[in-house]
Amino acid sequence: MTELINRQWRLAARPVGNFKDTDFTWHEEPVPALAAGQVRVRNIYLSLDPTNRIWAAQDSYLPAVPLGDVMRGVAIGVVEASTHDALPEGTFVQGLLGWQLYYVGDGKGLTPITKIPGQSLLLYHGVLGAIGLTAYFGLLDIGKPKAGETLVVSAAAGAVGSLVGQIGKIIGCRVVGIAGGPEKCRWIVEELGFDAAIDYKHENVAAALASHCPQGIDVYFDNVGGDILDAALARMNNFGRVVACGAISQYTADRPPVGPSNFLLVVSKRLRIEGFIVLDYLPRAQEAIPQLLGWIASGQLKYRLDVVDGLEQAPQAVRKLFDGSNLGKLVVKVSEEPS
Amino acid sequence: MTELINRQWRLAARPVGNFKDTDFTWHEEPVPALAAGQVRVRNIYLSLDPTNRIWAAQDSYLPAVPLGDVMRGVAIGVVEASTHDALPEGTFVQGLLGWQLYYVGDGKGLTPITKIPGQSLLLYHGVLGAIGLTAYFGLLDIGKPKAGETLVVSAAAGAVGSLVGQIGKIIGCRVVGIAGGPEKCRWIVEELGFDAAIDYKHENVAAALASHCPQGIDVYFDNVGGDILDAALARMNNFGRVVACGAISQYTADRPPVGPSNFLLVVSKRLRIEGFIVLDYLPRAQEAIPQLLGWIASGQLKYRLDVVDGLEQAPQAVRKLFDGSNLGKLVVKVSEEPS
Repeated sequence: MTELINRQWRLAARPVGNFKDTDFTWHEEPVPALAAGQVRVRNIYLSLDPTNRIWAAQDSYLPAVPLGDVMRGVAIGVVEASTHDALPEGTFVQGLLGWQLYYVGDGKGLTPITKIPGQSLLLYHGVLGAIGLTAYFGLLDIGKPKAGETLVVSAAAGAVGSLVGQIGKIIGCRVVGIAGGPEKCRWIVEELGFDAAIDYKHENVAAALASHCPQGIDVYFDNVGGDILDAALARMNNFGRVVACGAISQYTADRPPVGPSNFLLVVSKRLRIEGFIVLDYLPRAQEAIPQLLGWIASGQLKYRLDVVDGLEQAPQAVRKLFDGSNLGKLVVKVSEEPS
Repeated sequence: MTELINRQWRLAARPVGNFKDTDFTWHEEPVPALAAGQVRVRNIYLSLDPTNRIWAAQDSYLPAVPLGDVMRGVAIGVVEASTHDALPEGTFVQGLLGWQLYYVGDGKGLTPITKIPGQSLLLYHGVLGAIGLTAYFGLLDIGKPKAGETLVVSAAAGAVGSLVGQIGKIIGCRVVGIAGGPEKCRWIVEELGFDAAIDYKHENVAAALASHCPQGIDVYFDNVGGDILDAALARMNNFGRVVACGAISQYTADRPPVGPSNFLLVVSKRLRIEGFIVLDYLPRAQEAIPQLLGWIASGQLKYRLDVVDGLEQAPQAVRKLFDGSNLGKLVVKVSEEPS
């Protein structure tokens, strides 16, 4: 039997600014033999997400990835060898499988997933994965929008933001998206059905929010933080809700993060700003998934994938999240999906 | 009949930094005759509160006081003349009666209050007024502390903060107060029963929070904003709640307000930051008042008054709120309380 060789990206340095090639080192080594109760998973699709930058840089809701370890990442794979009763050979799994071709371990935290006939496993990195659950629970559970209210979402052409806006439309909100560049703005309005888009690279966001949100903002789904958060706070209605999902404008900044200077409005406008991490909602995933699948089937929910071919490409690909150049959910294809 | 002369403080300038004498002008004029449906109220106790600075400076949850108008203020008074069916002569009322001896108007927004035998009407500027309701609803309705959790409150020797900490103790929290100076710190620990006090003028607040909150902070009741809010955010537990009640450190600053630089922790720690204005809770006052009265009667809730004699003193007195020199609820005695 040919010895299996693992291929890995290991974290070599704490990133400063956007990721650089030198933040990772390529590593090849034989795959170890399975101990009792272990599984070997061949990774198929690796998800690249803004939170990767947090994991690489510092302790937060998870400890920072130790330097020299395989870079942390959510992936979908297939169990190819197993001495683990609950995860037999052939099982598809999703979890923190890492930036590598083969995962070998005790399988803790891995979730078995079912291949839906006629659908790619990529669905589990899209609406059925963290992206879909983040949009669904963040908007509905934290933001609690009502029909007729105005919802604003930033990074609106991003994987999460594009779903948030569409779910907002489904439940009857006026939806305004903030995105960078005319192509993203065109996409969210013409193809996804947002009521309006603001191109933050070419428009004054505060003025555009005033014009596109004549009734003020009831729910602001924040993916970016920084100046855009400030502009949204200034336009919030009394009792408005800010869903704090992320702050991508701050992750790669070369100065300490800056808080919203309009923070005093939290009191006078009785705002609620609430953060969440999708991991906390995994136990409730079954509340969301049938509805998400239904909306996909009916065509009410669309999403784009940006699939990059080959694990070698991961360091270059992940940078696209922070320079604004990717459109849709970013995934690296690590190996072939079984047909 | 002798002509009644009104005595008023009118707002002369938008304050910059702390209030100055020249921000107000003293004005005397005859009290107008009552039109149909009006009341004339003689003010007895005028409440001075941090929010006065907001009202004088800018539009917020209420429009700014127009320059030249009587300064806005909550007062307790007695109806001395009335052509208003619901507010007959002799009724005690509380509301936005202004920095003046006599209010003449349609009585809209005034709340009739009952003099409790043996108690001063001052009770209505204390636990039965905005102060008590702010502490009660802010802590219980917004902060939702549970027994065994750690509660931190800033401006802890202030009118609201001192009640917040005591209510926290009543419901079984570990309570740490942040106040300025040894006398205030002594008072909240020795007389009010806080578990610990931090003197922000003489201690490193972040280090002291680490030492006094070994289990982290579950609820932070924020009256001050600024650096102390940042220090509290850094120490919050996952799913912690920040009650945004005020930001007195920012009201008189001579630079634009600064947001919390630890704002990114809102996401990673899944924090909820929620603002409120006590006016919204007035319809629910009867949920709180019997409980507050009971705690007063049992000695579990103590409060101090700082009563300044004479309406002329109001401009000097209000400054004490912002230089940290007052202890307890600040009130101006405008005229005699009927016995």
